Amino acid sequence: MAGKKVLIVYAHQEPRSLNGSLKKVAVEELSKQGCTVTVSDLYAMDFEPRTTRKDVIGALSNPEFFNYGVEAYEAFKRRCLASDITDEQKKVQEADLVIFQFPLYWFGMPAILKGWMDRVLCQGFAFDIPGFYDAGFLKHGALHFCGFKVLAPQISFAPEIASEEERKAMVASWAQRLKTIWEEEPIDCTPPWYFGQ
Amino acid sequence: MAGKKVLIVYAHQEPRSLNGSLKKVAVEELSKQGCTVTVSDLYAMDFEPRTTRKDVIGALSNPEFFNYGVEAYEAFKRRCLASDITDEQKKVQEADLVIFQFPLYWFGMPAILKGWMDRVLCQGFAFDIPGFYDAGFLKHGALHFCGFKVLAPQISFAPEIASEEERKAMVASWAQRLKTIWEEEPIDCTPPWYFGQ
Repeated sequence: MAGKKVLIVYAHQEPRSLNGSLKKVAVEELSKQGCTVTVSDLYAMDFEPRTTRKDVIGALSNPEFFNYGVEAYEAFKRRCLASDITDEQKKVQEADLVIFQFPLYWFGMPAILKGWMDRVLCQGFAFDIPGFYDAGFLKHGALHFCGFKVLAPQISFAPEIASEEERKAMVASWAQRLKTIWEEEPIDCTPPWYFGQ
Repeated sequence: MAGKKVLIVYAHQEPRSLNGSLKKVAVEELSKQGCTVTVSDLYAMDFEPRTTRKDVIGALSNPEFFNYGVEAYEAFKRRCLASDITDEQKKVQEADLVIFQFPLYWFGMPAILKGWMDRVLCQGFAFDIPGFYDAGFLKHGALHFCGFKVLAPQISFAPEIASEEERKAMVASWAQRLKTIWEEEPIDCTPPWYFGQ
């Protein structure tokens, strides 16, 4: 939709991969709609995935006992977080739509994107909601918990053993979905009371 | 057991955390048993969690299209993996027992330990086995797949809201378990045929 801001958080080393193609087609389709599209290309940016003391500029709240969650929250309030974090937080805050584009191997995302989540969205909250396979941890845990309205995930299964035709269909299906993405309704997520709200 | 080699892969920023205490008590108990205990303290080592082209020394197998899984495997066969990876692989290979000690927040492990898994054990294989909460992804996915016999996980729930007494009991229960850890039988994991073997 014209005028909307989109952030694509993208984690893959190879631009010519399926992930790269999915990202590229999203930039094209959304730009064509008149959206402003920003891409955080985590590998290209050499994004730091480690959550360390360096994320806090200046003195720690408790230098005797380093608790990342506490220190990051205090630094956020005092506006003392490292600029690579606040730059990303600004992009998230300004965005009308955020797309996470990453390979769904292993337990769900590359370390560098997990690092982005840990550092930008805030690390350290527990959850125990089943449904890993459809990225349940992401939509119910991190994203919903952080205040996002969450759309259904778009998953391209086993691209490495798919044919070229099938991979093209995966990209086309994503481009097609994006044409009406602004009309989609958020999916049901864990209710706020689950988190004690 | 005297003479056994133990590797503890430890990911926490604060030595005085519960994770730090659990690691410390494991080193003490296992050393007392006469084991040789090696600790890979990932934060202290500043372990690189990113899976990049730098992990391969020299020429790539396919410089036109970077596929991390393929390149890492080829480099492994040619003995051209980066030394921070091969150092860890050597520790794993020599160990009779490997303990992963990390906070179980979010979707299971800090990015830096996921990076260790991605780079040392090998990245890129899919799985869809439920049971996230008891670290099923780890025991059935990564570890079992890589040839480990897997013991039951030891989980200390919600230490941040536990009392000092309760946290001490968590540490004591771990120390107690370690006294007879060599007698434990591996748990049932996904059968090999699941992975096409």
